[in-house]
Amino acid sequence: MTKNIAIGIDIGGTNTPYGIIDEDGIILAKGHLLTNSNLSVESFIEDLANHIKHKLESLPFDVSLCGIGVGAPNGDYFNGTIENAPNLPWKGRIQLADLFKEQFRDQPIFITNDANAAAVGEMIYGYARNMKDFIVVTLGTGVGSGIVSSGELVYGHKSFAGEIGHTIIEPNGRLCGCGRRGCLETYASATGFVKTAKELIENWDVRSLLKQIDPHDLKATDISQAAELGDELALKVFDITADKLGFSLANTAAITNPEAFIIQGGLARSGELLLKPLRKYMEGYLLNILQGQVKVIASALEENNTAILGAAAMVWQEGKKISI
Amino acid sequence: MTKNIAIGIDIGGTNTPYGIIDEDGIILAKGHLLTNSNLSVESFIEDLANHIKHKLESLPFDVSLCGIGVGAPNGDYFNGTIENAPNLPWKGRIQLADLFKEQFRDQPIFITNDANAAAVGEMIYGYARNMKDFIVVTLGTGVGSGIVSSGELVYGHKSFAGEIGHTIIEPNGRLCGCGRRGCLETYASATGFVKTAKELIENWDVRSLLKQIDPHDLKATDISQAAELGDELALKVFDITADKLGFSLANTAAITNPEAFIIQGGLARSGELLLKPLRKYMEGYLLNILQGQVKVIASALEENNTAILGAAAMVWQEGKKISI
Repeated sequence: MTKNIAIGIDIGGTNTPYGIIDEDGIILAKGHLLTNSNLSVESFIEDLANHIKHKLESLPFDVSLCGIGVGAPNGDYFNGTIENAPNLPWKGRIQLADLFKEQFRDQPIFITNDANAAAVGEMIYGYARNMKDFIVVTLGTGVGSGIVSSGELVYGHKSFAGEIGHTIIEPNGRLCGCGRRGCLETYASATGFVKTAKELIENWDVRSLLKQIDPHDLKATDISQAAELGDELALKVFDITADKLGFSLANTAAITNPEAFIIQGGLARSGELLLKPLRKYMEGYLLNILQGQVKVIASALEENNTAILGAAAMVWQEGKKISI
Repeated sequence: MTKNIAIGIDIGGTNTPYGIIDEDGIILAKGHLLTNSNLSVESFIEDLANHIKHKLESLPFDVSLCGIGVGAPNGDYFNGTIENAPNLPWKGRIQLADLFKEQFRDQPIFITNDANAAAVGEMIYGYARNMKDFIVVTLGTGVGSGIVSSGELVYGHKSFAGEIGHTIIEPNGRLCGCGRRGCLETYASATGFVKTAKELIENWDVRSLLKQIDPHDLKATDISQAAELGDELALKVFDITADKLGFSLANTAAITNPEAFIIQGGLARSGELLLKPLRKYMEGYLLNILQGQVKVIASALEENNTAILGAAAMVWQEGKKISI
């Protein structure tokens, strides 16, 4: 029997993992290539394609390739391009879908950004399998989101929807990489989370395990570990982060009325340490008719694989549309 | 020749206007019925249906009725119901679509809330005819919005999407009818607009035409008229309102990336008095990749008819879907 498979690729700033994935979300094989900044994008995609073809040939059973999904920073679904992605070595507008088509003839290619791929991953393989309206929030180096309404991704006019990380929640707040002040990202990203800890370490006269760590070396995982041990300061960092994020989720819920927020990324691994205060604050800020109606859950997809699963899931998602 | 027509009905707290409308948005006939709080909802819908049937029979040409669209506060598209609408005399959950079906046998009936009907109206008859992603913002007694993504209304999980008026823009700000503080509605509704004027009249030592009006009698139209004459205080009211609304539109644009915000309602009639500072503030708050990309325009639909046009437009919108 021939197995239907999709390829999921996650082009990142330093590393590009890929996976060969079936319709049930089983990763049959995976690999990765360093995102080599010395290569032209054409040569890089050629190298990547050769890696993947080799991997496909080495599978011990027959497969039928149904398509290729690619998640990339600033990935534009409508045009199949990436454009001025801040963390990638290639500048300007790149016809990414065309480059893949040269390598994989006759295959459908789907390009989107990381957060949208994450949302499709949850819809096909994760908690959102039976949901029509939900939002995936990715808490990583940045804060992104993928919004699904009536079972369809919300791309927006220029494919820029979902920039929840760049909604301003604190006028005159922390300076953001985007040049403005008070974006959610400056509080709820891994960097913002660590910054909150540093501010407390400096200004709060309380004993804390975190005060024994050189501030330059302090990482989000240190804070999570300390919080698990009941460290008061570390717990306060979670509380402040949950307050900021909860405010933002409540406002976002008023706009798109999702059934659930599914949290992905490093901070989601902290589980109830984050989710418990997050639910409390969100409920406190929610409009009355929405109270008790909006779930907040951590993704059940394996952290390291969410990006390639999401990218591959686009192939099945689009296939469903075509068969309707 | 038989003319295809739809009926658009706008059930309001005091008055229920309706119109017989063709596919081009021409209102062939219209009328209204007082929303009689002494009648049961069943009797009221029966009266309304009799009015409309009489109006249909009096038309001087043959028509083919294609469906009935009803906009109502808290109208639920999925269930065809209204539930606990604050301004309507009938409480509890009302099976509105069923009541209309009893009166108009075999006709498709579409129920939705006012802001969603407004969005469909703009899509079928207004500025959004060639847009796939836009948001109608209604500035009236309250502040609502209807969101369209990829040509489809965003209803959300429980049909509550679009509550932009109840996003919190000023923590610890003005008390809102919803019980929380700082909702956009407390600043950008007609009531909020007048409140801003009253605060300035009381606290700002500047000459103003508005100081000659008894504060209890001050209306939004007084402020618009004074602003048109160059009254400094009245212009400041527009400036403050535009600042608050511009902040909210910028955050909303980051979430759904609309091509345009189309402004409806009393304040939209003030035209550039509101729109000019609104665009300026919104641009100032917008994320860099969205700057210069989001239009802010006043609805071109005739103010008094937007609600019945929007309700009727649902019939054509749904018809398009079915014919695909």
